[in-house]
Amino acid sequence: MNKERLAAFTDAVLAIIMTILVLELEKPKTVNLAGLWALRANFFAYTLSFFWIGLMWTTHHNNWHKVKSVSNATVSYSLVMLFLASFFPYTTSLVASNFNNVTAQALYGVIVLAVSFSNMAISYSLKKVNPAAHFGWLYALPNSSIILDVAIKLVGLIITLTFYAPAMIYAIFIDIFIVGYATRQSSKNQFHLNKI
Amino acid sequence: MNKERLAAFTDAVLAIIMTILVLELEKPKTVNLAGLWALRANFFAYTLSFFWIGLMWTTHHNNWHKVKSVSNATVSYSLVMLFLASFFPYTTSLVASNFNNVTAQALYGVIVLAVSFSNMAISYSLKKVNPAAHFGWLYALPNSSIILDVAIKLVGLIITLTFYAPAMIYAIFIDIFIVGYATRQSSKNQFHLNKI
Amino acid sequence: MNKERLAAFTDAVLAIIMTILVLELEKPKTVNLAGLWALRANFFAYTLSFFWIGLMWTTHHNNWHKVKSVSNATVSYSLVMLFLASFFPYTTSLVASNFNNVTAQALYGVIVLAVSFSNMAISYSLKKVNPAAHFGWLYALPNSSIILDVAIKLVGLIITLTFYAPAMIYAIFIDIFIVGYATRQSSKNQFHLNKI
Amino acid sequence: MNKERLAAFTDAVLAIIMTILVLELEKPKTVNLAGLWALRANFFAYTLSFFWIGLMWTTHHNNWHKVKSVSNATVSYSLVMLFLASFFPYTTSLVASNFNNVTAQALYGVIVLAVSFSNMAISYSLKKVNPAAHFGWLYALPNSSIILDVAIKLVGLIITLTFYAPAMIYAIFIDIFIVGYATRQSSKNQFHLNKI
Repeated sequence: MNKERLAAFTDAVLAIIMTILVLELEKPKTVNLAGLWALRANFFAYTLSFFWIGLMWTTHHNNWHKVKSVSNATVSYSLVMLFLASFFPYTTSLVASNFNNVTAQALYGVIVLAVSFSNMAISYSLKKVNPAAHFGWLYALPNSSIILDVAIKLVGLIITLTFYAPAMIYAIFIDIFIVGYATRQSSKNQFHLNKI
Repeated sequence: MNKERLAAFTDAVLAIIMTILVLELEKPKTVNLAGLWALRANFFAYTLSFFWIGLMWTTHHNNWHKVKSVSNATVSYSLVMLFLASFFPYTTSLVASNFNNVTAQALYGVIVLAVSFSNMAISYSLKKVNPAAHFGWLYALPNSSIILDVAIKLVGLIITLTFYAPAMIYAIFIDIFIVGYATRQSSKNQFHLNKI
Repeated sequence: MNKERLAAFTDAVLAIIMTILVLELEKPKTVNLAGLWALRANFFAYTLSFFWIGLMWTTHHNNWHKVKSVSNATVSYSLVMLFLASFFPYTTSLVASNFNNVTAQALYGVIVLAVSFSNMAISYSLKKVNPAAHFGWLYALPNSSIILDVAIKLVGLIITLTFYAPAMIYAIFIDIFIVGYATRQSSKNQFHLNKI
Repeated sequence: MNKERLAAFTDAVLAIIMTILVLELEKPKTVNLAGLWALRANFFAYTLSFFWIGLMWTTHHNNWHKVKSVSNATVSYSLVMLFLASFFPYTTSLVASNFNNVTAQALYGVIVLAVSFSNMAISYSLKKVNPAAHFGWLYALPNSSIILDVAIKLVGLIITLTFYAPAMIYAIFIDIFIVGYATRQSSKNQFHLNKI
């Protein structure tokens, strides 16, 4: 498997997921500001899902030029990651229409966590066949920020399951800024290294 | 981030948006000329959205060969632009079924304006890292045509909000020819320069 | 505009159109052979649309390696072609549910004819900027087969409009084999020329 | 036809099919664990379809670097394969909502079998124009595993048609591991050969 083909396929699937999210976005019952405001949970979930996948895509590809070859394991883990990510339009729509429902929130969170773990598996497989790339648990992100990332999501999941259902999605909202910041720092460093 | 990967991802998302627009296109209640004529607002909004995004894509890529590198900011602004553009199937469908509704028209217009501003942000970020490309506010388009472009949309939005709801979509319709003409002129000049 | 970018965008839009056709395919009311047989018009229209676009894609790209550059006109005509082609999921679904309806059949045919004419416009624009490629009305297809192609569709449209509604789709069905055969012949010749 | 263009088009269509599968996935009537459990047939069919196409994609492209040229027949067979594969969202949804229905299960199985046969036709056409690639019935997979693959599916189909409707989908579930294993073995060998 050529590394470019895998990247192109991954990009295509992620681009489609991000774009069909809108097909599940509910229309306002009355078309006025009150009608749109009634859908604020939908817009929030939609926005979060879009940028969560977008950020994941950025993390992936900021580090892809360091990859020299991919293994069979990389391909398998990528398929698993794309499979899990393909649930986003489903779980986003579910959580949007059932914002205070424990099951909807937990399912959304479990998918996000599972995508995160599959991304770590991809990173691990790349590390094995590209030792010179110096990948950590998640590409070039510092392992400490990964621990923080998973911890925030797990805390969100626990609060969702115990006493406040919407906690999961708020945890991911907070998390996106923290991981986003770490990604930005890590890729800034790369820009300095990669400049001619 | 490789500039080609970003361009390919942008193209993929725009291609999907343009193509899934049709999934929201209403079917005629009675299949005859009168039934199709009853949907004229739908066809008009569909056509406008398709070509507006198509024209944006053209503007983007007529100037992409001048780009030597992209920054983290370019990637972030591009995600924001794609996020905003991903609302097109939603706002197009909304405006088509509620052609005389102020909220629907204003929302359609606000998304179009926001996409325009995010494109300027992309252009600005490219200008910073590619000083030799001589980009203006929106790639190689003359800044005067950008002022005109935004002015027409703002006038449309104001008329929509005050006394004639459908003004927004007609303003964009008029605007498409003006910006289309400017784009064509600017890319014509490039063709002369780029020919071997 | 780079010729590869235009081709990739065209391919992406056509791939999406061909694949979302299935989202409009009606489900059987009772899941047995009789229920599937009741949908035979749906399956027929679906199959025809899929292969018609597939064949168009083949014709396009069998000749793309001869293209050295594309003009602004090529880009504009391509956008028009993709716009028209984007109606396929709509007209296919309409004709499938209204097989004996004159308007549905005529609309399906008009879109097919309009796509054909926009393809000729693309070919014409390519001929102008690539005189060495020896393109005819539709790439390397003999002009005589194009006349036949348009003639069959026009006859189908006339019969649809006058005394037998489903004539249009049958005309396109017959036509697909004739143009398919001409394409195959023309690309066979190219294979001989292009082999190393 | 350029081999890369055909591969990119095939990848695009497969990526879209895999991603729009989710649009047909049923939402739970009551959002709790019991509601999700009631949809277990849906999730099972969805998962199976996703990975079946994913595995097919892997098999295709693990061997694509050996392909030097493609013939007209390769293009035609590929279109037929994509056409058949495009039914996956349809048959998956049908089998998910009608898990114990003979027609739904048989249709799902017939599509899977037909895709398999069209893949063999593609492999056969590639073998003819790329004799040095040493392709068998299905790329580099051992012919014995292909016989086993088809046999398992046929046995599943016969059991479905005679005394246990869901047999088809379980047969494909078992089959995925067997063919998956064979693919993995075959591509492992290639990794050794292809390493620099």
